[in-house]
Amino acid sequence: MARNQISCKSKGHKHMILIVGFMKKFTMLSISSWQSALKLGREDPRRLVHALKVGVALTLVSFLYLLEPLFKGVGDNAIWAVITVVVVLEFTAGATLCKGLNRGVGTLCAGSLAFLIEFMAEKTGTIFRAAFIGISVCLIGFLATYLRFIPYIKKNYDYGVVIFLLTFNLITVSSFRKRNVLYLARDRLYTIAIGCGLCLLMSLLILPNWSGEDLHHSTVYKIEGLARSIEACVNEYFQDEDKDNKIMEENSFKDPIFKGYRAVLDSKSIDETLATFASWEPRRHSRHCYRYPWRQYVKLGAVLRHFGYTAVALHGCLESEIQTPRSVRALFRDPCIRVAGEVSKVLAELASSIRNRRRCSSDVLSEHLHKALQDLNSVIKSQPRLFLGSNNAPSNTNMLVDWRHDKHALSEVVLPSVKTDISSILERRSKRVADKSAESAERKVLRPTLSKLAITSLEFSDALPFAAFASLLVEMVARLELVIEEVEELGRAANFKEFSGQDGIAMEVSCEDKCNESNRDRQIHVVSQSAE
Amino acid sequence: MARNQISCKSKGHKHMILIVGFMKKFTMLSISSWQSALKLGREDPRRLVHALKVGVALTLVSFLYLLEPLFKGVGDNAIWAVITVVVVLEFTAGATLCKGLNRGVGTLCAGSLAFLIEFMAEKTGTIFRAAFIGISVCLIGFLATYLRFIPYIKKNYDYGVVIFLLTFNLITVSSFRKRNVLYLARDRLYTIAIGCGLCLLMSLLILPNWSGEDLHHSTVYKIEGLARSIEACVNEYFQDEDKDNKIMEENSFKDPIFKGYRAVLDSKSIDETLATFASWEPRRHSRHCYRYPWRQYVKLGAVLRHFGYTAVALHGCLESEIQTPRSVRALFRDPCIRVAGEVSKVLAELASSIRNRRRCSSDVLSEHLHKALQDLNSVIKSQPRLFLGSNNAPSNTNMLVDWRHDKHALSEVVLPSVKTDISSILERRSKRVADKSAESAERKVLRPTLSKLAITSLEFSDALPFAAFASLLVEMVARLELVIEEVEELGRAANFKEFSGQDGIAMEVSCEDKCNESNRDRQIHVVSQSAE
Repeated sequence: MARNQISCKSKGHKHMILIVGFMKKFTMLSISSWQSALKLGREDPRRLVHALKVGVALTLVSFLYLLEPLFKGVGDNAIWAVITVVVVLEFTAGATLCKGLNRGVGTLCAGSLAFLIEFMAEKTGTIFRAAFIGISVCLIGFLATYLRFIPYIKKNYDYGVVIFLLTFNLITVSSFRKRNVLYLARDRLYTIAIGCGLCLLMSLLILPNWSGEDLHHSTVYKIEGLARSIEACVNEYFQDEDKDNKIMEENSFKDPIFKGYRAVLDSKSIDETLATFASWEPRRHSRHCYRYPWRQYVKLGAVLRHFGYTAVALHGCLESEIQTPRSVRALFRDPCIRVAGEVSKVLAELASSIRNRRRCSSDVLSEHLHKALQDLNSVIKSQPRLFLGSNNAPSNTNMLVDWRHDKHALSEVVLPSVKTDISSILERRSKRVADKSAESAERKVLRPTLSKLAITSLEFSDALPFAAFASLLVEMVARLELVIEEVEELGRAANFKEFSGQDGIAMEVSCEDKCNESNRDRQIHVVSQSAE
Repeated sequence: MARNQISCKSKGHKHMILIVGFMKKFTMLSISSWQSALKLGREDPRRLVHALKVGVALTLVSFLYLLEPLFKGVGDNAIWAVITVVVVLEFTAGATLCKGLNRGVGTLCAGSLAFLIEFMAEKTGTIFRAAFIGISVCLIGFLATYLRFIPYIKKNYDYGVVIFLLTFNLITVSSFRKRNVLYLARDRLYTIAIGCGLCLLMSLLILPNWSGEDLHHSTVYKIEGLARSIEACVNEYFQDEDKDNKIMEENSFKDPIFKGYRAVLDSKSIDETLATFASWEPRRHSRHCYRYPWRQYVKLGAVLRHFGYTAVALHGCLESEIQTPRSVRALFRDPCIRVAGEVSKVLAELASSIRNRRRCSSDVLSEHLHKALQDLNSVIKSQPRLFLGSNNAPSNTNMLVDWRHDKHALSEVVLPSVKTDISSILERRSKRVADKSAESAERKVLRPTLSKLAITSLEFSDALPFAAFASLLVEMVARLELVIEEVEELGRAANFKEFSGQDGIAMEVSCEDKCNESNRDRQIHVVSQSAE
């Protein structure tokens, strides 16, 4: 008995603990989710506005049902307007227009086809009619679904085809039992039109969000990100101390360099979605009436990605296990930093020209960069360089071997940092292995071979990694040319205003610095949100 | 009169020409669209099967309406089953399950909440009731829309929230005029359940397509693509002639190197979508009942992208304007090709291990690669290398200057190809400028500066580009380690079968070669289709 009571008590106690724990967890969860919800709104207040717009639009469309005079006019079909508002009203104007028009055209096409089927099956007997309807439903279902696999349809009219199929089936199947189904379809079309109209009103006229604007700003943001990333990358490469190496490794996802180019790398699908929606939007910024070249933004995005891959490779030089000793790097510090600085200045200028919708000033762009490249060139040339073709010139070889001996002797005296670097890497590596020692034995099979690999790599020429770094920097300048070409092409295609000279830049740079921060924050979220 | 007649005749003639032209165009268009439709089906027959499945499912669900006994049981609400089938039946089982369950749970939640609202508003007067319904519609609309911005919800339950909002509005608004709306909702729920059931049956039991399988195969395909790409890239770098340089430039999008890594670069959104759907699918390949680690595929995808960026940079070395003379490259030809060959062998082995769901044999992987790297190392070391820190050792400088003079003299004698390369690049460049001469004058403002840039670049050390190439190759080996780690992690997490020794590989390689081609073709389309 006593034991039973004790066990009961302890059970009760356990339950209490469980319940309290659960309550605590629940409270924590709700607090954290509340906080993250608040953060979402603060990050981009347009989200709050959009949510409010949906709420208001739903209430307005409900009035069709709730208010007596309106209900008398529309009747039960009012429910289709409600459905339309829920499904069609999207975050940006372009998306809403795309969905609304797709829905409208899909419904119309489906109605016409259903009318044709109805007309053909009208005079026949019930059984034949059922068979006819069944077959046509199967056939149209097959064709419409197959159509959705065609890339062009998938990209632009997917929703329209779904609505077509839906409406066609609704009308055709209902028409089997209801004779006045076509009038019904007509009434439904009216209410769907009311719903679409309300959605368009809400998204085009009341605090609209434009996909085109998002695409424009995200392009600017991506170019700025690349500029920051390159500058940070080169600065870090030539940093004197490597005290924060470990921190970098752990937080590589919060790294400013990574943050700079991240938005560029995975931008393909976002860009294309935004451009598709933008192509549905009416133009606001054009003085003439012509198709705004949203596709050009997608092309620019592709070139930026291409450029971004070089930035990744440059970042890779920082994180590589094989490193040129810092004392050696220091020799090339200034020209490299200048080239990178000029590259990011050009990028910043391109970004600002796109932001302000004006042509970029090509002269200003390249002159300093050209100078910086020449300096880097002469510094690299002033250092003795890799000798090539030695096996063709045996007479020289002896001298060179001597020179290499000298160099070996020298490097041990002058460059103690080589050792430091190697040992620090080995230390880091062994630490990493130790961290993971808890893991299963099979991992260890691979480990020795891999560390052997790493050590082999470390025996490579010290200068190899720096040569790669410099070469990537030069390659970057070559790719920058492609970016400039695309931006010019964009300026021409979009009729950006002509470049107005030096004073223009100065003014815009100062005013742009102010709005940069807020815009940047917003753009991060536009991009990340569209990606999800 | 006569003039009038002639003008009439010529007008009629013009109209005829226009009509014939239009007819021709239309015929051409319809033929080409028919051909592209056929191609779609041939590329991936699963598309045809899926379209057929949709047709059959729609016909089956129409029977609820068409057949008298079934209609008596279900009634007018049968239409909701039709809607459900159109909207829920997706290409893969995971997507269908995700949508079906989202729809089911969304409808249930909405029904319960609507019941609560109904219960609260029941006893009140009409005006108060209308206001109450209006306010609750607005509030719930706001909250649900805002909820959709939360990344986690957006990713997994977006469709569910839309359906929740839709159903809630339907029920709440209808309940204002119909008193028995909850019974109606219950009946609708039944028919929606019938529709969902049919969809699940069609997509899970009849020739199912699994998102998980797609993800698995696309991962294998991506790794194989990288392997091919790297091998092709290094082979091309050391090709003797550059006769096909121009062709490469124009067809860079059909380039086998580009084709190899293209699938990897933009795989982020596709991988994540497939993994999300796959996580809804019941497991087939596990012997134990546990959650299959689809997330690990996404992580592996991220590491592969990271690896792919190095492949892009390596490809960039081929396309760069500054090139190490081919005669010089030839010195390093064999070891580089061996390293690349070993890297792609390792990748192929990883791909085959994933395909056959067995652990990879880590020993076999690294031994040859290690040897090849060592060879490359010794070849690079056997050539005199970049001398560093010369300003720290003034005593050496004079000798080095002499050596550089020698080198200059030598390079003009031994390496005529440097000149050839430079002049060919300049030729190409001037041709490109000439091609574009038709374009507007503003382009020319930039041109001289840019060509100046390019010439400056050409004055850089000849060996710089090769050093970058070699360094990227070594970097690639370092990143390969990360790929191996992730594949091992995947093998552990997914309980792949243990590696069974040498014979296993031989057998699998031979059988895999056969199915490679067909699988590869299919996978391209899986990936490209999901991307659209």
